[in-house]
Amino acid sequence: MLAPISWRVPPRHYGPWELVVSTLTEGLVRRGVDVTLFATADSITTAKLVAVSPTGYSEDSRLNAKVYEGLHIAAAFERSDEFDLIHNHFDFLPVTYSRLVRTPVVTTIHGLSSEQNLEVFRAYNDIAWLVAISDSDRRPSLRYCATIHHGLPIDDFTFEPTSGDYLLYFGRIHPDKGTAEAIEVARRTDRKLVIAGIIQDAAYFEEKVKPFIDGHRVVYAGSVGPEERNRLLGGALALLHLINFDEPFGLSVIEAMATGTPVIAFRRGSMPEIVSDGTSGFLVDTVGEAIEAVERLGGVNRASVRQWAEEHFSAERMVDDYLELYQRILRQPSRPSGPH
Amino acid sequence: MLAPISWRVPPRHYGPWELVVSTLTEGLVRRGVDVTLFATADSITTAKLVAVSPTGYSEDSRLNAKVYEGLHIAAAFERSDEFDLIHNHFDFLPVTYSRLVRTPVVTTIHGLSSEQNLEVFRAYNDIAWLVAISDSDRRPSLRYCATIHHGLPIDDFTFEPTSGDYLLYFGRIHPDKGTAEAIEVARRTDRKLVIAGIIQDAAYFEEKVKPFIDGHRVVYAGSVGPEERNRLLGGALALLHLINFDEPFGLSVIEAMATGTPVIAFRRGSMPEIVSDGTSGFLVDTVGEAIEAVERLGGVNRASVRQWAEEHFSAERMVDDYLELYQRILRQPSRPSGPH
Repeated sequence: MLAPISWRVPPRHYGPWELVVSTLTEGLVRRGVDVTLFATADSITTAKLVAVSPTGYSEDSRLNAKVYEGLHIAAAFERSDEFDLIHNHFDFLPVTYSRLVRTPVVTTIHGLSSEQNLEVFRAYNDIAWLVAISDSDRRPSLRYCATIHHGLPIDDFTFEPTSGDYLLYFGRIHPDKGTAEAIEVARRTDRKLVIAGIIQDAAYFEEKVKPFIDGHRVVYAGSVGPEERNRLLGGALALLHLINFDEPFGLSVIEAMATGTPVIAFRRGSMPEIVSDGTSGFLVDTVGEAIEAVERLGGVNRASVRQWAEEHFSAERMVDDYLELYQRILRQPSRPSGPH
Repeated sequence: MLAPISWRVPPRHYGPWELVVSTLTEGLVRRGVDVTLFATADSITTAKLVAVSPTGYSEDSRLNAKVYEGLHIAAAFERSDEFDLIHNHFDFLPVTYSRLVRTPVVTTIHGLSSEQNLEVFRAYNDIAWLVAISDSDRRPSLRYCATIHHGLPIDDFTFEPTSGDYLLYFGRIHPDKGTAEAIEVARRTDRKLVIAGIIQDAAYFEEKVKPFIDGHRVVYAGSVGPEERNRLLGGALALLHLINFDEPFGLSVIEAMATGTPVIAFRRGSMPEIVSDGTSGFLVDTVGEAIEAVERLGGVNRASVRQWAEEHFSAERMVDDYLELYQRILRQPSRPSGPH
């Protein structure tokens, strides 16, 4: 399991890729799989931990990211003969080592920060086992072996059977994520809004968010840790996820549903794959439709929302899916050695 | 031959690493060596050119350096079984691929932009064939197989038997390179100074250089191409190379000597290895000594300066040194395969 080394596994606060790696790794170990996790030295795991970098390079600015990336990736590939499979969660650079070893390399594409990154995956289409995190995130030029939605440890999220009285915005504060749209929906439905997340776009926060924060109708809770997240998500009437981009997946969406809180999301990116319209929330196309959806929340059964999350977005389902993929790959005839 | 892809090989203007790669590659081809050059697609060579990146990422800001670096390095390593040797000029990242192939990898350390880069070379001390570009640039923690000074195609530089009447500063304009010290020496010896090079430190240029430029006693020639360089170097009384850092090598120093122009250099870094004190110029410790050295230039024979350059810094000498190293490496018993 080749984790990114931007943050610790599992991350202390932010770090969605590292969070998924942790959930999958711990799930595989519970199933009896012999997992070696290549991650930062301060990572916490029941797998065998192998580390080159003392901590995440986003957590300590003295660390030279490129130096540790190279050493970290090489550490895994140099031991490839010990492993049946290498599962790469660290973007495209490890893929460029993959033809030099015989061990199959599975790559989950967690995000594509640049369209040029596609060029690497394209160049390895013939041997790369690429996993999409949603069907909406599949790129026509890439050959995928599976779509596997993320899952989470459902039991870490407390089911809250009673609806709360506030709307919740949960995510980094950025135009992509629709903070301003959430504020508009809350104001026009005369509901309280709680905003939680790091400020990623300071100008947007100053202009579109801060003027509405009054500590009463619109509350800014900042970045919240696991315990407060659980409470905030569970206590909400609904999560507003009015995204302005084709989001490949939404971890906060499945976290909300795990507590029983329905989600009102724009019908974009992966949302139609994650939110069951009418059961676990509502898919809408406009702010006006989002406002109407708020008025229809009384018709949503919170137990059904939780059940939807349990059935589709549990860690166990994700582990099942990856195990099935691993076994499918291992049934393939082994390909000839690389350059030897 | 794995070149950097920051610039074309050979570079159009700036690009010292790419320049050395070009000189070595062309020299090896002249000796009948079968060389495949991995470089940008617009590179010019008599070797077999293999390219992934259309041009240098420093020449086209649309190119994602990391994407092309990975693809470029992998392209060479994936074909390693076709080569007796891989000669890496592309810093530390290729070294992290080297345990995955059986082909020996020689790395010339052209520069160390960060002390942390040493960690990669240190981690591969047991199998990396490291070449220092001067003895002064050797780091105690690294195991080198050779020091090989750069060479240049001496015949591209016209020997000028007669001393010119101006002092020359040739290099990027930066405190490290001693532009201000060169101006002081010229003023106090009442000589004309010509300054040639890109402005790398704009504040330094504004404060310490520009006030003295009068187009008469102190002339700024900007960045000059190969032809004007030849004329400027050859026409000088001396090159002033009053560096304020331990420069690992000085290409402009050997270029000046190739035209017969002596060099007055601070006794730092690689200078004592490059300048023959009293024969090809003078090594000094202070501006005062540099001023005295200007007065002693009449005692330097320009033919001897050229001869020093021919004997020690020709392309052919560099090619000889690398060929000897390659042969020494190929006589070693081959090491076992990497992870297979």
